Amino acid sequence: MNATLGVDLGGTNLRAGLVDSSGELLAWGMAPTRHQRSPEQFVADLEALYRSLLERVETTLNVTGLGLAVPGPLNPDKGTINGAVNLPGWNNIPLVKLVEEALGLRTTLINDGSAFVLGEVTAGALRGSGNALGLTLGTGVGGGLFLDGRLHVGATGNACEIGHLIVEPAGRLCLCGRRGCLEQYASASAVRRNAIAFAEAGELPELLEQVEGNATNLNTRLVSEAAIKGNLRCRELLAEAGRWLGRGIAQALTILDLDDVVVGGGMARAGELILAPARESIRGAAFPPRPRLRLVQSELGDRAAIIGSALWAGEIGHRNA
Amino acid sequence: MNATLGVDLGGTNLRAGLVDSSGELLAWGMAPTRHQRSPEQFVADLEALYRSLLERVETTLNVTGLGLAVPGPLNPDKGTINGAVNLPGWNNIPLVKLVEEALGLRTTLINDGSAFVLGEVTAGALRGSGNALGLTLGTGVGGGLFLDGRLHVGATGNACEIGHLIVEPAGRLCLCGRRGCLEQYASASAVRRNAIAFAEAGELPELLEQVEGNATNLNTRLVSEAAIKGNLRCRELLAEAGRWLGRGIAQALTILDLDDVVVGGGMARAGELILAPARESIRGAAFPPRPRLRLVQSELGDRAAIIGSALWAGEIGHRNA
Repeated sequence: MNATLGVDLGGTNLRAGLVDSSGELLAWGMAPTRHQRSPEQFVADLEALYRSLLERVETTLNVTGLGLAVPGPLNPDKGTINGAVNLPGWNNIPLVKLVEEALGLRTTLINDGSAFVLGEVTAGALRGSGNALGLTLGTGVGGGLFLDGRLHVGATGNACEIGHLIVEPAGRLCLCGRRGCLEQYASASAVRRNAIAFAEAGELPELLEQVEGNATNLNTRLVSEAAIKGNLRCRELLAEAGRWLGRGIAQALTILDLDDVVVGGGMARAGELILAPARESIRGAAFPPRPRLRLVQSELGDRAAIIGSALWAGEIGHRNA
Repeated sequence: MNATLGVDLGGTNLRAGLVDSSGELLAWGMAPTRHQRSPEQFVADLEALYRSLLERVETTLNVTGLGLAVPGPLNPDKGTINGAVNLPGWNNIPLVKLVEEALGLRTTLINDGSAFVLGEVTAGALRGSGNALGLTLGTGVGGGLFLDGRLHVGATGNACEIGHLIVEPAGRLCLCGRRGCLEQYASASAVRRNAIAFAEAGELPELLEQVEGNATNLNTRLVSEAAIKGNLRCRELLAEAGRWLGRGIAQALTILDLDDVVVGGGMARAGELILAPARESIRGAAFPPRPRLRLVQSELGDRAAIIGSALWAGEIGHRNA
């Protein structure tokens, strides 16, 4: 049987899995976060992870290629990434070449947001959708587009940098140098920043107790858990992020004309606490109105980008064959 | 030889032409604007125009279908249009059925912005582009998307309603009921409205003279002509529209990742007076930056949507064959 290796190179985790052509995950695993130290460490960790995966599948499995999901911006022709906030110092490193030399697998770069949406439409929450937008809420806000039955990676491989969609002209300064980018309002980092400010102002006493009075140890998992238990301040923090998220999604829907949207990343686990306010925003901002909107939470979670990047490697392999 | 009939049903003009499969316009013409009176009058006018076109081409020409470009929103399944500001009273009229019965040609609806971009990438300013965005500056701002080598019409046939992209939250009220839509800042109507305000405030004496002191007779053609001759106020009116246009385009580029953008509609004739400020805005707002941006004026003008709608009818015909 043929399979491809999908790799999700995040700022804090390295995940990889072997995937068949239908999108089924045959085996997957994670490596510790040492790879942030250097591209060489990443390649060594990936090689060890790949070997451990091969031990868990049938020896007849034929691995035909590798899809490497990375935070953008990327250059698929040169096989490099540039300006990923969570991977400083990796700019213009010949990542694809390093991986190909170490693992002996033809390697294809893909934006992690693109890999996410491809995973979800093939084997996740939007299985069977022909037109879908995917968003991931993490340190930043990533995105991917599946249009007319296929992935739209864009002219330079960087489609759907929706985290840098400007939702508030003259708004908050973003790390990219622009103002009012969506990820300054709807990312996990944005929620965390607001939670810290509230905690420091004495507005989140229960949460502050959980981190022994050190507000900078707050994270969105704690905010979400408190919100689910009924903490109104935490609910409002998530609802605020959801409303901004909806504004950004509405802009994309007005341009793309689609109904299926899937949201992933750690913060998406808060589910309707974010998605319901987002739907409300979309209702007021999308044109034309979207009576058939399907805004859902990721089903595959951390596995979506593994599956999507593996499927993309398979597709690119077929095109080049 | 096979051909299809392309029809551009605008708010003020009806245009139609016979087009071969390469996008060559074999014959085309316009009908007076009486069609605004009713859908029945439109069908009668179109039938007469079609007959006159047939007289100008070889009798062996085999017309296989009709593409009807209309202002959105449209319902391609029902063959109806809904809420076109310039065609009041046409809502839910079975337009496709009426045309098919009168002309005997299988008829396909297409958004006029989609038809425009398809014409320009096939036979106009962006010939050969694989990923392109088209915008038309008229009463409103229309748009169309050509992605990965084919037209993206969207899940409901209404892709790229870029005139209703929100560029200024809490900005000017739009006819659609939302606030801050691009067409409130970058359409011909927006420029005209600003010109009238300036003229009434005594700021455009030369222009006011041309319309015998009646500012409401000003239009964007007069503004453009004065700007080209060097009138600084008129230049600023166009530059302002261009800057807003650039902001809207930048949002689309951030989502779509493409470099080729073509601008049409009457006001596009002002050329660089609009496009240069638009490029400047895009530089500050698009992510990632677009060093290969190609923002150009329409080459086909009024013929773009005729050609594009005819080509679309041909493509749909092939798919259904």
